[in-house]
Amino acid sequence: MMHELVHGGDWAGFAADQGYLPLDFSANISPLGVPQGVQRALREAAAQADRYPDPLCRALRRAISERESVPAAHILCGNGAADLIFRAVLALRPKRALVTAPAFAEYAAALERAGCAVTHHPLRAEDGFHLREDFLEAVTPETDLVFLCEPNNPTGVTTDRPLLLRILERCRETGARVVVDECFNDFLDDPAAHTLKGVLDCFPGMLLLKAFTKLYGMAGVRLGYALCADTAFLEQMRLAGQTWEVSSLAQAAGLAALEETEYVRTVRALIAEERPWFAEQLGKLGLRVIPGEANYLLFQSETPLCEPLRQRGILLRSCGNYVGLDDTWYRTAVRTREENQRLAAALKEVLG
Amino acid sequence: MMHELVHGGDWAGFAADQGYLPLDFSANISPLGVPQGVQRALREAAAQADRYPDPLCRALRRAISERESVPAAHILCGNGAADLIFRAVLALRPKRALVTAPAFAEYAAALERAGCAVTHHPLRAEDGFHLREDFLEAVTPETDLVFLCEPNNPTGVTTDRPLLLRILERCRETGARVVVDECFNDFLDDPAAHTLKGVLDCFPGMLLLKAFTKLYGMAGVRLGYALCADTAFLEQMRLAGQTWEVSSLAQAAGLAALEETEYVRTVRALIAEERPWFAEQLGKLGLRVIPGEANYLLFQSETPLCEPLRQRGILLRSCGNYVGLDDTWYRTAVRTREENQRLAAALKEVLG
Repeated sequence: MMHELVHGGDWAGFAADQGYLPLDFSANISPLGVPQGVQRALREAAAQADRYPDPLCRALRRAISERESVPAAHILCGNGAADLIFRAVLALRPKRALVTAPAFAEYAAALERAGCAVTHHPLRAEDGFHLREDFLEAVTPETDLVFLCEPNNPTGVTTDRPLLLRILERCRETGARVVVDECFNDFLDDPAAHTLKGVLDCFPGMLLLKAFTKLYGMAGVRLGYALCADTAFLEQMRLAGQTWEVSSLAQAAGLAALEETEYVRTVRALIAEERPWFAEQLGKLGLRVIPGEANYLLFQSETPLCEPLRQRGILLRSCGNYVGLDDTWYRTAVRTREENQRLAAALKEVLG
Repeated sequence: MMHELVHGGDWAGFAADQGYLPLDFSANISPLGVPQGVQRALREAAAQADRYPDPLCRALRRAISERESVPAAHILCGNGAADLIFRAVLALRPKRALVTAPAFAEYAAALERAGCAVTHHPLRAEDGFHLREDFLEAVTPETDLVFLCEPNNPTGVTTDRPLLLRILERCRETGARVVVDECFNDFLDDPAAHTLKGVLDCFPGMLLLKAFTKLYGMAGVRLGYALCADTAFLEQMRLAGQTWEVSSLAQAAGLAALEETEYVRTVRALIAEERPWFAEQLGKLGLRVIPGEANYLLFQSETPLCEPLRQRGILLRSCGNYVGLDDTWYRTAVRTREENQRLAAALKEVLG
């Protein structure tokens, strides 16, 4: 039985083949590793991990509530944002859903496994993969659920806020729920200006997704959360899966992460500095680079890159399995200068 | 919004109310805490938790394969056995399912949320809650899925192996899949004699569930696994939920736990010694005790117990919300002699 892996980050497969760990540009996570305070919290939580986790994540939700200035009753924690994507779909049981193409693959995966018909709304390379007004017409009275990703994964592109609000209004009119995935919002230059957190109360049909995964370098821990003003829907999501989905280790790690303000400042400053520099380097190699605003960049190369980079110990994300892209597209994480230089040098070799 | 908690183990709710941790008899986990080797593995894994977990749990499945003498291709790991219960239901999408009453509540929860009609097959107190031959007739050609729990939770009672095999044959004839939850098998006096692991190949429609939760005192870590000879069904289960459900911490903890043979010997010997002693103490207090074979005991008391015990800092599992039981039934974990004595003394006070 072959197990097809549709995402990046398969360092384990590489290590099993090659006997050493790759330099991984295929997963979009903080290049600064697990914050010291989070590591400490995990070490301390190990001794108490015989107890069942708090199924309601009470202490963690209280802390997120303070950080986000959102009532604890409007917060649901999950085993990573991916868990919450599946729970939202299972709770709603939509018949018809609308996603952009390209978009994070777990949306369509969750929808299709729930037997939902998925409409893929194309974003065009010629238009820099921007979401435009024609999306409003794509939302019809038959649409039960809309997934948006801001900034979008894998493009890194954001949508103008006025248009986002019009989409939310349109969905409110037609009765569609909207999931807005803000997992990479914190890597934008001005996260506060772009998040839709402030209009949660105006749009109870909107669910925002956030993750600890990327910003805090905690992908292995599994922790994300949803924000929504419709508490009944959050409760349906909670009941849509098992009772103890968030481990006690993840709850302890999340509490510690929220204290890591200096780490966040550092990683955000690093990405803000490296992203334009790295995009410029890729451009100089003749690659077509989409001007993303997150901690990753989408680019196009007619020369196949994954295999030759793999031979050089580097993992890159081929975007050939994204609806709306083909195998000339690649996504790279933005990492530290030294690492970005290594990738740029390897690309230079490969592109000859 | 009230969040009803249907299971035991809500130490966090107690601690939030009372400001200290209870003595928890409401969750059935090893009383010896997290094994030292598992704690060490968790501490060491903390620094690498920035990477995504291996979605295929390759190293862990290899180790489980060796331990269980089952091919790695026949193993699927999950975020606790509860995750695998939901995945099995979501993968199969049964219309009609059969569970015993009483049984672990997550079976019916998963089934009902998937819109499946659930038939509860009564087990009778007068008959010591044994599963009997009439269950064979309860399996009809309309039955898509059967859940069995061996030993059963919350009764601790096992079913005669010849009858189990006849049930499996009956299900093979009628086309029903069977999930046999063996999460507490390791606490039986002779686990090897009772597990159905040896007949996996004969019954590809059978899925066995096992957990690290209870035996290794790892409930907060979240790790369980399913064994099944039908690899296509395992792959459907894998695709029924998110990609990274098993954290990298859980994978590291599981690998370390499999080395903890001395811990397992110790905790099994402790339970084997304490279970009959504790049952005897409960009987001396005039309580009706079901002769369970696992690390917990089901008993009946006309006097309400939970609240007065809670006032004494002790959590007990009321079984009032189990289908097939009422609030005169309680389940207690079997813990260390000193702890069991504390519960027995408190019960003596309460019962006057």
